[in-house]
Amino acid sequence: MVNAGRLNHRHEASSRLLAEEAPVALIYNGISLAVLMATPADLTDLAVGFSLTEGIISDPAEIRDTEIICHPEGTELRAWLTTGRGRELMERRRQLVGPTGCGLCGIESLQSATRVLPSVPRGISLRPPQIAAAVQAMVDAQELNRRTRATHAAGLYLPQERTILVREDVGRHNALDKLAGALAVRGISGCDGALVLTSRLSVELVQKAAMVGAGLLIAVSAPTALAVRTAEACGITVIGIARGHEYDVFSHSGRILPA
Amino acid sequence: MVNAGRLNHRHEASSRLLAEEAPVALIYNGISLAVLMATPADLTDLAVGFSLTEGIISDPAEIRDTEIICHPEGTELRAWLTTGRGRELMERRRQLVGPTGCGLCGIESLQSATRVLPSVPRGISLRPPQIAAAVQAMVDAQELNRRTRATHAAGLYLPQERTILVREDVGRHNALDKLAGALAVRGISGCDGALVLTSRLSVELVQKAAMVGAGLLIAVSAPTALAVRTAEACGITVIGIARGHEYDVFSHSGRILPA
Repeated sequence: MVNAGRLNHRHEASSRLLAEEAPVALIYNGISLAVLMATPADLTDLAVGFSLTEGIISDPAEIRDTEIICHPEGTELRAWLTTGRGRELMERRRQLVGPTGCGLCGIESLQSATRVLPSVPRGISLRPPQIAAAVQAMVDAQELNRRTRATHAAGLYLPQERTILVREDVGRHNALDKLAGALAVRGISGCDGALVLTSRLSVELVQKAAMVGAGLLIAVSAPTALAVRTAEACGITVIGIARGHEYDVFSHSGRILPA
Repeated sequence: MVNAGRLNHRHEASSRLLAEEAPVALIYNGISLAVLMATPADLTDLAVGFSLTEGIISDPAEIRDTEIICHPEGTELRAWLTTGRGRELMERRRQLVGPTGCGLCGIESLQSATRVLPSVPRGISLRPPQIAAAVQAMVDAQELNRRTRATHAAGLYLPQERTILVREDVGRHNALDKLAGALAVRGISGCDGALVLTSRLSVELVQKAAMVGAGLLIAVSAPTALAVRTAEACGITVIGIARGHEYDVFSHSGRILPA
């Protein structure tokens, strides 16, 4: 974050913390796979989480090493994979690059946008007051957003401990990836708690939730139709528009116990 | 949109409209360039706007024709470019695909994430009550969001006419691209009004605003530090956290006249 001079509506000079955002290149075994615009913090979590939720690895141990290199243009986030995983990635990459060069047809591109997802385990259930507690815990934990008003957050609420592990980022996908990495490193499974997201729920977030095995997904805003269909298919309970003690259940209501 | 059964917090069946979201493949002269997750409406606006804000064309007339093909997997949005533009795109694409196949280094990827942007024209100025009016006009115009609570919007507020032209989408980038297309088709320049966005302001949105020549950018939420630096550099006035009569000015305050 940086302090930035600003003028408020009376044009008096004041100062507000602005959320930093920078290009982060994700580089696997020396090859750049993606450039994300991200909050440059918790980058090792991001490397592990992105790799898991995008199916590049299935276990954090498959990343042998990570390295963070800062340039004026942005940050290189380098991951070195175990031999087997590295070879698989090269194979997938070759398949991807080949047809792009000679002209992918639209249908092939559309099909590759649809992912086969694992079914999530049953995991925990929640009573209604615990849903409200999870949302409140998230509000209390969003330190970066309190100062910048420009960041999203993803958290895993553990109802037994009444704690939430939170990661924040200017991008909602990155926030969830950072959380996925933080959970994996700590050996916490997504089905041990309830995933809380500050954002609208689009399909990519449900896909990433499935990849971390989260059966309970609480979002402050609403899901899209495709997000709900995807959650139905992989067994995720979607609780949306969760504010205070109000919320709507969009799929698999069986994980919500009577009050 | 679809009607979806839902359970509210008392587990009574109810119904809410869910925003549709589907993969949309953008295909230029038969070659797929990008797949977006988007609200499948105003797709011709999206094709024109995306092409303009991503620098694929500089004038809507450079798209000879568009075609929308619906598949179960999603939608193909096909654009056919004029001969010169088509050749340029192929050239850029070859440059892009070459090094990716043999292994882009991270720094090259990071550099390509930074775009050279045009300086925006001076355009109109606003008095503080007009800023509040622009925000209110946007709230009134968000029909899809009122029903779904899951969509962003981008609008151009014309203070003389006191009207706003709005496009909505599950993605904030898509909403702005659709608006850019709608403006271009109508021959309205971004500097004739004030751009209003319902979202946080990350750098890509400032980049797209610069490409449509918008000098005034009003966002309901806060900008990131990089968004402000980029707005400074290309001459855009960023007004953020705009709610009711309150707002903060983050760059180029000269376009805001005394009350």
